[in-house]
Amino acid sequence: MRMRKKKWAKPFLEENKNVMIQTPETYKGQWKSCLKKDFLAVEIGFGRGNYIAGMAKNHPDWALVGIEKDTNCAAVALKGLDPSLTNIKMINQDATVIETWFDEKEVDCIYLNFSDPWPKKGHSKRRLSSASFLSKYNDILSDEGHIVMKTDNQSLFEFSLISFLDFGFKLVEISVNYDSVAEGDPVSEYEQKFLDLNQPIYRMKLKK
Amino acid sequence: MRMRKKKWAKPFLEENKNVMIQTPETYKGQWKSCLKKDFLAVEIGFGRGNYIAGMAKNHPDWALVGIEKDTNCAAVALKGLDPSLTNIKMINQDATVIETWFDEKEVDCIYLNFSDPWPKKGHSKRRLSSASFLSKYNDILSDEGHIVMKTDNQSLFEFSLISFLDFGFKLVEISVNYDSVAEGDPVSEYEQKFLDLNQPIYRMKLKK
Repeated sequence: MRMRKKKWAKPFLEENKNVMIQTPETYKGQWKSCLKKDFLAVEIGFGRGNYIAGMAKNHPDWALVGIEKDTNCAAVALKGLDPSLTNIKMINQDATVIETWFDEKEVDCIYLNFSDPWPKKGHSKRRLSSASFLSKYNDILSDEGHIVMKTDNQSLFEFSLISFLDFGFKLVEISVNYDSVAEGDPVSEYEQKFLDLNQPIYRMKLKK
Repeated sequence: MRMRKKKWAKPFLEENKNVMIQTPETYKGQWKSCLKKDFLAVEIGFGRGNYIAGMAKNHPDWALVGIEKDTNCAAVALKGLDPSLTNIKMINQDATVIETWFDEKEVDCIYLNFSDPWPKKGHSKRRLSSASFLSKYNDILSDEGHIVMKTDNQSLFEFSLISFLDFGFKLVEISVNYDSVAEGDPVSEYEQKFLDLNQPIYRMKLKK
């Protein structure tokens, strides 16, 4: 989701480097010990941050790391973050180099929520569920690790499911009309729009 | 789809045993040679027969065998069948013994359209996508064979996809909002109701 450029965004992120990690590669292999948690969940593309903040609140025993390449989004999310949440770190960089930030098998769960569908065929490699990303997820995920993807976008859902299965991930759960509210999943503003319109949300959960 | 009992159904089926095959086991291994076709497609649960009749018309080079355990449905379908279609045979029996009618690897495609969802957990084994059926489909399907499933039922779709993948079938195509009309697929009265209501049709295509 694009938002208007905010002049204050970049300096604000730099001021708050205790949460908005500037050199995530220095945490590689140490996220759990640094955050003093046994379970590490990563959201790629956290947008305005509602989901990751909700998960951090719901799971105080988890370490959460959010990645968002859009600086304006990252700044808005950081600004809205409850400062009492100490189990969350953020990265304002492109996830294409995610393997430089996390060690092999370091991550227990990866969340992909309402990712950019990149609808043009020529852009399919940019989708967060394209093969080159899956290879990186496979490396950084623990043996018992999961990937959970939610989207409102039919084509992205269909593409992603085939992509995950072709890579060798195994489908654990699927819903073609997911009720985040009933399931206790944090709902973002973006998702709420679709729920209000009674449009389906698609969700899949996969394992290695 | 239940329909009112028709007294004329059973005698009508017996009168037309050239199409409504009474002893399908005698055709085992010989469907293609008997129908003089190189490709054999089987629909399990043909209901009022619109789909299989449409496919027989669209694919004059295919042999089509329809299975429907409900005698009233089978009779209505047979009555409505265009007598000029010579590439179609029907069976009014329960598909639980499908392996007695088709030889190993004899079938090129299996269609499951709007199958009974058997929503109660205790009835899950009756679903046409439950493991015991999949084992039989796997045996009778050719190495290049496919299974195509269409349904309006969300729970049946989700259950079936997991069931197929767990068994070892591979997902080739998936649509969570399938447009049969645009795809040139015959549309049954039953499916038309959902299309008119703008409700999604789910479809998956799998291979061995």
